[in-house]
Amino acid sequence: MVCKTTEAGTVCPVSRTMSILGDPWTVLILRELFQGAVDFEEILVQTDAPPYVLAERLEVLEDEGMLISSTGDRLPVRREYRLTEKGQDFFPVLYALRAWGETWFKPDGSDFAVRFTHRVCGNDVGLESFCAHCKVFVGKSDLLRQPSRQWEEERASRRNNFRKRVG
Amino acid sequence: MVCKTTEAGTVCPVSRTMSILGDPWTVLILRELFQGAVDFEEILVQTDAPPYVLAERLEVLEDEGMLISSTGDRLPVRREYRLTEKGQDFFPVLYALRAWGETWFKPDGSDFAVRFTHRVCGNDVGLESFCAHCKVFVGKSDLLRQPSRQWEEERASRRNNFRKRVG
Repeated sequence: MVCKTTEAGTVCPVSRTMSILGDPWTVLILRELFQGAVDFEEILVQTDAPPYVLAERLEVLEDEGMLISSTGDRLPVRREYRLTEKGQDFFPVLYALRAWGETWFKPDGSDFAVRFTHRVCGNDVGLESFCAHCKVFVGKSDLLRQPSRQWEEERASRRNNFRKRVG
Repeated sequence: MVCKTTEAGTVCPVSRTMSILGDPWTVLILRELFQGAVDFEEILVQTDAPPYVLAERLEVLEDEGMLISSTGDRLPVRREYRLTEKGQDFFPVLYALRAWGETWFKPDGSDFAVRFTHRVCGNDVGLESFCAHCKVFVGKSDLLRQPSRQWEEERASRRNNFRKRVG
């Protein structure tokens, strides 16, 4: 989906960005790539995107230079998808989305889906990009991801359901 | 547009958030509300969203508690749309989208569409949420917006085109 205002060549960076990312699937695909998924199937299972949508979105992300695909060295041969620097640099957007979602829009009584701790000191940074213990900014490479049990279970259940479906 | 994974009640805050925001129009509508737009027409002109789409998205945002609409005290009477605290709190997401767009996805030779300076000291914070001069974090209320000439012209041209169209 391309946003009309962007086709018209706007200077607005938000509008331009949404022209490539403006649907929920793309954001969920990026979420999976950030979590280390490299396979089409892995991304398919966890986003629940229709396969043709996933294929098209991966192509857009590759055309935009946010990921590169290659034939991995595992057998059976399959394409692997990895974020480029341009893709990696999108992390703060997902991190901000997460903070908003965890603050304003979450199931009652649920824990954060993922906790991020500062790799150096182990401090839980909560929803911030700052370690209050070390008084430093923290980016993706400074953080350790700790998925909640509920989130792990949800992901495992999606994998199981997928296996049951495809046999 | 509702994202299937969200309907299934995921704990993932990114997925949940995209279920209400997962299209480019919603983000552009929020951008306009952050810039101080209150009228349907003003938002319509600057997002170029089809009127029925704008009406539907405003309704979703109101249902989700991100904005409230009211009958303003201006004549002729018309509805006014204003962000709630939940809506205001979405600013970091747009700010992160802007940073990515200005870094990776901008017309050659163009300036930032909007410059943000720290209200207290006048320092241009660039794409950061930190004032390097005062060594403090800065949020929306600490920042002054300075639209570029190009961005102002683009917006004026949209207003003019709209007026020509509707007579």
